[in-house]
Amino acid sequence: MELLNQTLKKIEGLNEGAMQKTKERIDNLIKPQRSLGKLEDIAIQLSGITGKLYPKVDRKAIIVMAADHGVCEEGISAAPQIVTKMMTSYIAKGLSGVCALASQARAEVITVDIGIASQIDDENVINKKVRLGTNNMTKGPAMTKEEAIKALEVGIEIATDAIKNGINLLGTGEMGIGNTTPSTAILAVMGEFDAEEITGIGANLPKEELTNKINVIKKAIEVNKPNKKDAIDVLAKIGGLDIAGMAGVMIAGAANKVAVVVDGYISTAAAIIATAIEPKVKDYLISSHMSNEKGASKASEILGLKPMLDMDMRLGEGSGAALAFNIIEAATFMNEKMITFQEAGIGVV
Amino acid sequence: MELLNQTLKKIEGLNEGAMQKTKERIDNLIKPQRSLGKLEDIAIQLSGITGKLYPKVDRKAIIVMAADHGVCEEGISAAPQIVTKMMTSYIAKGLSGVCALASQARAEVITVDIGIASQIDDENVINKKVRLGTNNMTKGPAMTKEEAIKALEVGIEIATDAIKNGINLLGTGEMGIGNTTPSTAILAVMGEFDAEEITGIGANLPKEELTNKINVIKKAIEVNKPNKKDAIDVLAKIGGLDIAGMAGVMIAGAANKVAVVVDGYISTAAAIIATAIEPKVKDYLISSHMSNEKGASKASEILGLKPMLDMDMRLGEGSGAALAFNIIEAATFMNEKMITFQEAGIGVV
Repeated sequence: MELLNQTLKKIEGLNEGAMQKTKERIDNLIKPQRSLGKLEDIAIQLSGITGKLYPKVDRKAIIVMAADHGVCEEGISAAPQIVTKMMTSYIAKGLSGVCALASQARAEVITVDIGIASQIDDENVINKKVRLGTNNMTKGPAMTKEEAIKALEVGIEIATDAIKNGINLLGTGEMGIGNTTPSTAILAVMGEFDAEEITGIGANLPKEELTNKINVIKKAIEVNKPNKKDAIDVLAKIGGLDIAGMAGVMIAGAANKVAVVVDGYISTAAAIIATAIEPKVKDYLISSHMSNEKGASKASEILGLKPMLDMDMRLGEGSGAALAFNIIEAATFMNEKMITFQEAGIGVV
Repeated sequence: MELLNQTLKKIEGLNEGAMQKTKERIDNLIKPQRSLGKLEDIAIQLSGITGKLYPKVDRKAIIVMAADHGVCEEGISAAPQIVTKMMTSYIAKGLSGVCALASQARAEVITVDIGIASQIDDENVINKKVRLGTNNMTKGPAMTKEEAIKALEVGIEIATDAIKNGINLLGTGEMGIGNTTPSTAILAVMGEFDAEEITGIGANLPKEELTNKINVIKKAIEVNKPNKKDAIDVLAKIGGLDIAGMAGVMIAGAANKVAVVVDGYISTAAAIIATAIEPKVKDYLISSHMSNEKGASKASEILGLKPMLDMDMRLGEGSGAALAFNIIEAATFMNEKMITFQEAGIGVV
């Protein structure tokens, strides 16, 4: 709790002066005003985050939080729970989807066991296990409030360490079989949606099992009665350790003035929690892709995030964040490498 | 005509066997099937284009075709015609928008004068001037059919040279004040749209001048009566030299089995011409971003292209194509660096 509170206290608003200077420069670059759209917004936001006119985002990392979900007992996922552990090993070995995309973007992948349901012996996986998976949330809280806070603090620690090591752009990823179920439960409570409206097939759940998934989400909310006004209560009762870890990464990014890239559906659920804990976190988030998962567009809307990529992707792991890294860096190149009309000696077009 | 015809004759369909092999591999990578969406489509397409299971797209170039448009006399653009020449120099010097984005993507920018209205002395601009800008198309054809063919062949030459020099991924860009006007005219004729439906503000044309732009487009079509079934007739009468050059690049990419990335609105108009000349060219095109120009979504629909990026951009120059380069390369990394379930020794999830 100490670390979480200290970190939250450090979070400041964006540097308005730096944003104004960058906006002025961008409005004067040799192009029609606003013609680079979201690239301009990103460059201005990065100046607000870092306080710099020419911020660098040349040291990128995706933090992958791996955890299991007790609710898997209810048959809400196509893959068995053991796949979380197996895939975490493959992520740590550099052989998974996010690894391939991160390597193209010259980004690191940091793999964290924040709550896999069994022991994992892999020197490339950072052991920060809070507990061996969550409880089945249809029968009571997924975890205690203390455990939720501890998981948030794991995210803070890992992100803060990465930033100390020179990382200047963070992405959030996860591996947790079943985790679209707690994500949808969070979205239902925080966005006041019916589960029917927003529940999707996750990682290829057969369509005939969707009704069960919807009922499981409804039951979890009914049994636990999470308090919408207390995001940590929601996170503990119907969330997950992976989601908590990702929210912690976002909070630490904001506290340390480093942008954090939101990945897809699970990451957006984490962002809903992080920004409910501290609304200023929102200013430090950059959206990446519009996930193909059913509730994704509503989740982005709640946060006011406008994804840049429309790839029909729904892998998770941080794969969308990895794809966005180059685009975000391109925004900094725009600002730094283009010249202004004044520098070119011509009037504004 | 000789070069164009020879090049068209070389164009073959995609290699179905290679596509099938790549599809099988991708369906077995350690991820839920189809969960990487458009990245999977791109990887399969690249195999079809190159015939290789693991094609490389590590040598990228944007070809920027610069030309002027006689129709500028009609007051259809915010910027004066001289800006084409000035901006072409800045592109050749590496100081413009596409240059900044291309440098982030480690891509070359090849700048071609295919028809600027005045002489340009810059050793970094390739001189392939077909003529000093087009004629005002409200008073007759923008150019002769022979000139349109010559401009197509310039595109073929430049792209073929780049491919000979090792370029394995091409992007199309342009610089031509006023060129949303001929692009919209092409779209109106080839897609059978009313000019009102699809005419936008281009590079910040004041809204009160939009009606004039619409009337100019209508007049150009009325005066010239381009034959929809003869794409070169359409290109010559109501097109442009830049558009013709870009269409030539696409044709050469297809003939040489190199993918060509379509940029925004102007590039899509060029793609409409190129695919009308030879429908197989379509298989070699990869869409990049959804331009913010009014007619862009209709133009993409005609071609069946599904842009990956939604950046609210409308700069042109090839800026959207440059942003897409990293994503296309990421698709090849996915295919090559991820392992299959069989390689991992686990069943398909």
